[in-house]
Amino acid sequence: MTRLWDKGAPLDERVLHYTAGEDYALDERLVRHDVRASIAHAEMLHAQGLLTQGDFTAIRAGLSALAVADALDELALRERDTPLPGYTHLQQAMPSSVALWGGGFAAEIRDDAEGLRQVQRRVGKSPLGSAAGYGTPGLPLDRGATSARLGFDVTQEPVTAVQLSRGKAEAQLLFEIALLVQDLGRFAADVLLFYTQEFGFLELPDAFTTGSSIMPQKRNPDVFELIRGRSATALGCLTEALGIFAKLPSGYQRDLQLLKFPLFRSIDLALQTLDILPPAIDAMKFRPERIKLDPAIHAAEEANRLVVQEGIPFREAYRRVGAKLKG
Amino acid sequence: MTRLWDKGAPLDERVLHYTAGEDYALDERLVRHDVRASIAHAEMLHAQGLLTQGDFTAIRAGLSALAVADALDELALRERDTPLPGYTHLQQAMPSSVALWGGGFAAEIRDDAEGLRQVQRRVGKSPLGSAAGYGTPGLPLDRGATSARLGFDVTQEPVTAVQLSRGKAEAQLLFEIALLVQDLGRFAADVLLFYTQEFGFLELPDAFTTGSSIMPQKRNPDVFELIRGRSATALGCLTEALGIFAKLPSGYQRDLQLLKFPLFRSIDLALQTLDILPPAIDAMKFRPERIKLDPAIHAAEEANRLVVQEGIPFREAYRRVGAKLKG
Amino acid sequence: MTRLWDKGAPLDERVLHYTAGEDYALDERLVRHDVRASIAHAEMLHAQGLLTQGDFTAIRAGLSALAVADALDELALRERDTPLPGYTHLQQAMPSSVALWGGGFAAEIRDDAEGLRQVQRRVGKSPLGSAAGYGTPGLPLDRGATSARLGFDVTQEPVTAVQLSRGKAEAQLLFEIALLVQDLGRFAADVLLFYTQEFGFLELPDAFTTGSSIMPQKRNPDVFELIRGRSATALGCLTEALGIFAKLPSGYQRDLQLLKFPLFRSIDLALQTLDILPPAIDAMKFRPERIKLDPAIHAAEEANRLVVQEGIPFREAYRRVGAKLKG
Amino acid sequence: MTRLWDKGAPLDERVLHYTAGEDYALDERLVRHDVRASIAHAEMLHAQGLLTQGDFTAIRAGLSALAVADALDELALRERDTPLPGYTHLQQAMPSSVALWGGGFAAEIRDDAEGLRQVQRRVGKSPLGSAAGYGTPGLPLDRGATSARLGFDVTQEPVTAVQLSRGKAEAQLLFEIALLVQDLGRFAADVLLFYTQEFGFLELPDAFTTGSSIMPQKRNPDVFELIRGRSATALGCLTEALGIFAKLPSGYQRDLQLLKFPLFRSIDLALQTLDILPPAIDAMKFRPERIKLDPAIHAAEEANRLVVQEGIPFREAYRRVGAKLKG
Repeated sequence: MTRLWDKGAPLDERVLHYTAGEDYALDERLVRHDVRASIAHAEMLHAQGLLTQGDFTAIRAGLSALAVADALDELALRERDTPLPGYTHLQQAMPSSVALWGGGFAAEIRDDAEGLRQVQRRVGKSPLGSAAGYGTPGLPLDRGATSARLGFDVTQEPVTAVQLSRGKAEAQLLFEIALLVQDLGRFAADVLLFYTQEFGFLELPDAFTTGSSIMPQKRNPDVFELIRGRSATALGCLTEALGIFAKLPSGYQRDLQLLKFPLFRSIDLALQTLDILPPAIDAMKFRPERIKLDPAIHAAEEANRLVVQEGIPFREAYRRVGAKLKG
Repeated sequence: MTRLWDKGAPLDERVLHYTAGEDYALDERLVRHDVRASIAHAEMLHAQGLLTQGDFTAIRAGLSALAVADALDELALRERDTPLPGYTHLQQAMPSSVALWGGGFAAEIRDDAEGLRQVQRRVGKSPLGSAAGYGTPGLPLDRGATSARLGFDVTQEPVTAVQLSRGKAEAQLLFEIALLVQDLGRFAADVLLFYTQEFGFLELPDAFTTGSSIMPQKRNPDVFELIRGRSATALGCLTEALGIFAKLPSGYQRDLQLLKFPLFRSIDLALQTLDILPPAIDAMKFRPERIKLDPAIHAAEEANRLVVQEGIPFREAYRRVGAKLKG
Repeated sequence: MTRLWDKGAPLDERVLHYTAGEDYALDERLVRHDVRASIAHAEMLHAQGLLTQGDFTAIRAGLSALAVADALDELALRERDTPLPGYTHLQQAMPSSVALWGGGFAAEIRDDAEGLRQVQRRVGKSPLGSAAGYGTPGLPLDRGATSARLGFDVTQEPVTAVQLSRGKAEAQLLFEIALLVQDLGRFAADVLLFYTQEFGFLELPDAFTTGSSIMPQKRNPDVFELIRGRSATALGCLTEALGIFAKLPSGYQRDLQLLKFPLFRSIDLALQTLDILPPAIDAMKFRPERIKLDPAIHAAEEANRLVVQEGIPFREAYRRVGAKLKG
Repeated sequence: MTRLWDKGAPLDERVLHYTAGEDYALDERLVRHDVRASIAHAEMLHAQGLLTQGDFTAIRAGLSALAVADALDELALRERDTPLPGYTHLQQAMPSSVALWGGGFAAEIRDDAEGLRQVQRRVGKSPLGSAAGYGTPGLPLDRGATSARLGFDVTQEPVTAVQLSRGKAEAQLLFEIALLVQDLGRFAADVLLFYTQEFGFLELPDAFTTGSSIMPQKRNPDVFELIRGRSATALGCLTEALGIFAKLPSGYQRDLQLLKFPLFRSIDLALQTLDILPPAIDAMKFRPERIKLDPAIHAAEEANRLVVQEGIPFREAYRRVGAKLKG
């Protein structure tokens, strides 16, 4: 393909290779958005806005799929009678339940879904018609019409804001993915703890564990370990994206092209993780016979009761219950 | 002060020192919020929500102060007749102006202010009444009434979500501060470029530069260098905060206490930077006699005109203008 | 104090405050190094090299203090008869022992000490005599003599490398601290796991735990939680430092002054953590009666034995032991 | 291929896909090292050590290739008569030269090469024979012989240190790559500055620039922009790697498998950048007629001369030269 700016001068092949880099593969993902936008506004396509618009829809769809599945709610329902210790400092603290445990994570995942929806504010600004970042002097364009036709919320003004904003919507998406993946990672950390022989709170079917090539007796919960580890990847992608546009003088600069890689990588890992999670949750089976609550776990409840029944201050009730426990 | 849980056992002084750590200084900032909350709901104060609520108001106030100052708008007005080259790849690309340049940054700073407002969604959830994260069995509390009295938007449910969400509102605030500080840092990078002898686009009064202890002729734009450098601090604080709650099993853990430090540090640097910026912008004076636009900078405009006037495709207009420029 | 470059022009107070920022407190730490260097080479002191030189000695001393304490070796000796399961994927895998467990961490901490020693290569380059980064034309200075007198390993050449290298020694120190703190954090994560009621592998005296203000029965291992959390702080400081000098054009720039904050903060937290660790390790007491090894934990050993005794391939031995365990 | 631990139980395809993930492509790179190691020690290959060993050689070779090219030294030689202003705070400060400018970067790149060599200390520890991290009870293995045959420096002891050290050698390599890429990025930042029309210090041939699809007159220095942007990628990879093993309880965990991705990605980008740099440097041509030194740039030199010739203190010489420049 001839490049429009090609004036016949020999372009060093290494330059072409280095500057194209990972772009070919990444750009394939943009083609369908490109085609759609080209129909409305061929000359001044700005990949960035569209890119996020497109993938943004995908990740939101992925997320809502999880909310439709509602695997955690089903778990809470399925195990509605299973008690669980509530921990603080990893020590048994107060009585809790599988329903409360799963419900907490369900609430946070819904909070993340809401956070992802908020990214729309930055994604919905149309850069189209800003050309290289300084408008199209001499061309009678109607930027508003193009924005409306392509479903953007607003037209970004002034044109110089378009390039200055590059990376911000992407970074917000990566930030919200990082929160989501960290929430899932903490869920996985709990599962890994509950699955130890010492806790023994739950079991996983063979289909959801892998074996060891050295130790014939082992069943390993790899899926949950990888979910936990992914929070580091999400953080790495966010750090990379923020670092790319930090300190850049204004106006388009080629560095901004590098945003695509961490963006796509993080979206992919989030979608893959959301995909594996519902069947993984379905596969979990709690073992109520192994879940033993420390007899002292009701101490706070008992102190509360003393406060209500005897009308004494909490401080006094606390000391009384504490003394009784000591012996 | 006696600690409620103190049963007389000797507490290693080093333990007290290590666990208290930076908390004393940090907690002082929370006292006024603490007092206010204590009146409504003494026993179960959770510093975190209030903390962010309080500081959140401060940084939003700081930001709006900037929007009230509107220093960039004034700059655009003051220099409304000053042209400026528009750059891409740091090369002169299209005609632009000081008004368009400042306007782009003003738009992005307003976008950041909007981003900070969105944090309210996570800050506005009341944790009060969740106690250690598992509610207050035995105590007849009305969590909704407390939330309403203290001005929260909603009561966080279920109680197990409260500790799981620790760090998320803080991290979102730190993320939006990072975007804001990066925008300001890019503005500073432009100013530093324009202030070089080679560009010479603007001058700064002695009051806004510092001197050199070796070179008597120097006037250094330290303020803008420090603004640029602060983007690294904001990124460090965000990374630290996300790292603190990554992978933690659910339930309160003492690590979460460490969130206060990066939170306060980032808020402080953002407020200080917002404070120095308006006078710094007021001090800038452009030198139109030094701003020289490359004669070829109108090439794209000329090509556009050929398209409109002669009805030829842009590709053909581009080649024609390119050939004319070559000689 | 009058600044040398002060020519009487009014300096905006806000500028002075913003540019001085956190410097006063940080610079106090540099004074004694400053004095020492001033005697040898007064006019052209460059804080950076000396700073790291000084603090570097402190942290190395702190570290060797730990190696002199050798708390982990003592633990291994004290608990030399205590078995421990060896885990992979957090599942019991092979037989291990407290001695092997502590020995692994001791080896890694010594590896970190060695890593910190390697930083000397970058710290030992003398910047003195490079002045503002371009030497002292017209002054007959003997840079080598100054370097030798102050104990540097080499004189940094050419003079332009001095400012280019700013931040690299600091970042390497912060990187090695991050590895050290992460190792200590993983040790703490193990202790927190072993201290759960479900594992119950060890106990901690009251002097090394804190109580709860709600639950009278609780003893919380805060020290180990804070050690675990500190790995995030160390990562934040490293990210901040690297971000400060990323993308800067060459030559001294004021942004570099910001390196001091993450440097001192990370050194302080590492020294504090190293200080609390030996008594914390001394306080740990294993409970052999609670440490139960899964009977299947010897499966790999049994398969190995079949390989040696019967001369069958490991694959065959693995299948045979696996079948026996199944039923 | 049948997995050794496959006992016929159905493995959920999604589990296989999620846990294999990016591994297939990444593992291809390890095959040749795997084969070599298998000959010496088939059953207990641990990819990690070897991996780093192998790629480590590649990147060191890449680096030395640059030192053999010595493109910067040639530049310094080629442009040995070209003066250049020396900047501090991006302001002309003292007289310098292309030779001094290039020499500074050459010194730092050699410093990075030395830093990469230091990684050998951690890479050279043989994990072989540690099996799952707890040795091979029942098998009479000679770990030392295997280490020696494969060229490791030492055998890692005790066996429990092997899994604890996972990620540390990788992270040190990623850290040193980050320093290298940041140095190259700062070199690129200088080139981009010198290539602006306003500086106009150097020109690049058409073969090393790309054109614009909108503006026929533009020649864009994309290669140098991408080099500058790569520092963010290197930082992202380092952050990701450190995050992966942070807080993990001891013993092998599947999360560690995720280290391969940031490791390979960062090595690849460093090698590609080192590959494009020598021809890019060869292509640079300085334009001495455009390089104008500020007449006041000799002020420090003049003050120095007064000190030597008239025996007055520097403070007095500074004031005298300053006064002369003012009027």
